[in-house]
Amino acid sequence: MSLKFFKELRARDPFYEHGTILSSMASKPLNIAVKAFSEFLDTNAGDLILFKNIHRMERYVVRKLVKILGCINGRCSGYIVSGGSEANFLSLWLLRNYALKNRRIRRPEIVASYASHYSIIKAANALGLKIVYSRLTKDYKTDPDDVAEKVSRNTIAIVANVGSVELGTVDNIKEIAKVSLEHNIPIHVDAAFGGFILSIMENLKFKKFPGFTCNSVYTVTADPHKTLFTPIPSGGFFIKDHKFLKHIRFKAPYLPGKITETLIGTRSGGSIASIYAVLKFVGLKRLKKIYEKCYETAFYFYQKLLKIGKFKVYGTLETPIICFKPLTCSTDVLMKKLWKKGWIIYKCSIVNGLRLVFMPHVNKASVDRFLNDLVSLVEH
Amino acid sequence: MSLKFFKELRARDPFYEHGTILSSMASKPLNIAVKAFSEFLDTNAGDLILFKNIHRMERYVVRKLVKILGCINGRCSGYIVSGGSEANFLSLWLLRNYALKNRRIRRPEIVASYASHYSIIKAANALGLKIVYSRLTKDYKTDPDDVAEKVSRNTIAIVANVGSVELGTVDNIKEIAKVSLEHNIPIHVDAAFGGFILSIMENLKFKKFPGFTCNSVYTVTADPHKTLFTPIPSGGFFIKDHKFLKHIRFKAPYLPGKITETLIGTRSGGSIASIYAVLKFVGLKRLKKIYEKCYETAFYFYQKLLKIGKFKVYGTLETPIICFKPLTCSTDVLMKKLWKKGWIIYKCSIVNGLRLVFMPHVNKASVDRFLNDLVSLVEH
Repeated sequence: MSLKFFKELRARDPFYEHGTILSSMASKPLNIAVKAFSEFLDTNAGDLILFKNIHRMERYVVRKLVKILGCINGRCSGYIVSGGSEANFLSLWLLRNYALKNRRIRRPEIVASYASHYSIIKAANALGLKIVYSRLTKDYKTDPDDVAEKVSRNTIAIVANVGSVELGTVDNIKEIAKVSLEHNIPIHVDAAFGGFILSIMENLKFKKFPGFTCNSVYTVTADPHKTLFTPIPSGGFFIKDHKFLKHIRFKAPYLPGKITETLIGTRSGGSIASIYAVLKFVGLKRLKKIYEKCYETAFYFYQKLLKIGKFKVYGTLETPIICFKPLTCSTDVLMKKLWKKGWIIYKCSIVNGLRLVFMPHVNKASVDRFLNDLVSLVEH
Repeated sequence: MSLKFFKELRARDPFYEHGTILSSMASKPLNIAVKAFSEFLDTNAGDLILFKNIHRMERYVVRKLVKILGCINGRCSGYIVSGGSEANFLSLWLLRNYALKNRRIRRPEIVASYASHYSIIKAANALGLKIVYSRLTKDYKTDPDDVAEKVSRNTIAIVANVGSVELGTVDNIKEIAKVSLEHNIPIHVDAAFGGFILSIMENLKFKKFPGFTCNSVYTVTADPHKTLFTPIPSGGFFIKDHKFLKHIRFKAPYLPGKITETLIGTRSGGSIASIYAVLKFVGLKRLKKIYEKCYETAFYFYQKLLKIGKFKVYGTLETPIICFKPLTCSTDVLMKKLWKKGWIIYKCSIVNGLRLVFMPHVNKASVDRFLNDLVSLVEH
């Protein structure tokens, strides 16, 4: 009885497999990830003694993931957390405490671009950090020259984006690192969406994400619930040297593990098991194939859209996100009409356009259906 | 193949149903909660437009839960978050921003007792709050007279515990509220463990949790993944008036919902569905019965332990937590010997004793087995 009840309840909202969800950085979780998550639904990764093997799995998973993200010194570390917002928060919290301890700063600042995710703004508010906004280049990337202008002796971190949330643009980490090195300021990379993609893809026409191979990169956000296709919640908070974790280390007196280095105490063991499953049973080769398909679909859409000629198209396709603006009608009106036809599409507010994320559930067939509706709406 | 693999992997750690986990504030999730969670494993509660019905369910669930917690004005609100640590963080963040906006405070402080959960200490560090510690009474409750001494014009909140993490003690909210009213300082109640229990139980020899019936209580933490027996993650952040949420409201420009009032963006829809399932299909009467059994087992253990006469026993049994200290040997040595026998038991560091949490998976049979081992270890 109840299973039917929940299935009916679930069916009131769209499913990824319908191909109509064009707005999401998540997709249908992989079967194997769901199985693993379900088997560990009663476990708490925050309890190191009770669930020793979850703890071991987490260490394994983090070791593999930092390696994917370019760790070569063997000292990188991190945690599986609830998502990109928590990972960004932890990174800025740690870098703030690090700076407060090592430099006499009264009014800590971060330099971040207008393309940064809103979780950076939330974290800055909570942590008492002033945000000094850096300019974007004309292709909507953080401008390293402007960052050089904006850093000061109060700057505790430079925030870079690898796969910015609205346009999917990828900052030039190596250029930003030059500024960072010169002023001795850590970089935090919000690679929630692009981190794994741009580390696992090879022979791409775009640059690989340098990640921890770049010495100025102290912390990286990269989300398994986005591009490793595990269930929600599953975020990744990674750091170039485990010794820095002491800046957010707190005693948990009643736990035999006795310390925590995350914001959240009780964490899902299922999240960790599901990443373990993807790394063990899906593997990087298969992930790479999935990403390739996402890029292929994005490129397919990109070309068709250009051909129609009624849109301004943004995005460099470094990650499979495309933003476009109708030339002959209002973006908001068009979006609402698309909603009425069942398409779930959101805006890229930065250019007041519409934004498509090409996750595995968006295939060429659904792109064709979408284009049909789009053209008919723009022409009438 | 893979299901067997995950089952074997899971089996390396203990299960709640073995009755050997005496340390956990969580228990085996209820079947119906697991079913609901699994059915909604691919949904994101952070996306109000895509998963409209998750959003509706969350509003329903929050309405029911604040009512349980004493809301009578119809204006209470809140969110299903990742757990007690996030809920405590959100509460202090909101109350800090509220105070900064409404009063000219330079060095914000909170008054909290030594029995507070370590998440309060973490949140205070992140949020730049000085903790002024208030004394505990001899039964390990926050001393309202000492709170009155410790509040100042910089105090942004008084933190009270309903079911303190180590001893399960319940602060006298009404007495603290007198101080609070006099100085016009909001109370945050960390009722992560005791909130639902002491609101749902009736005709108890201890006082009911006044919750939001008490005008000084601005925010309450109460965790579904503890005492509503839903899977992890599932925390509850509740507030007496929805209008206060504006103090942690941030724009999410690319989402049509456009605002967030939580720290975490992407949240598990499964968490919400599982609470919905417990409220709809289990109900308060059945929950009350489960709690009664927990108290009964705790009382059974309490009496047996007193009879043995070799322990100092702490705790008032207002919540089903008991702490005890061996009179004839070292707590640490005893704990390690108990671990070797397969018991998962942690310390109550505040009195250097051992702590038992009587969750539904701890029954009289496992208490008897535990007592047998305990006595034989103390006597030899």
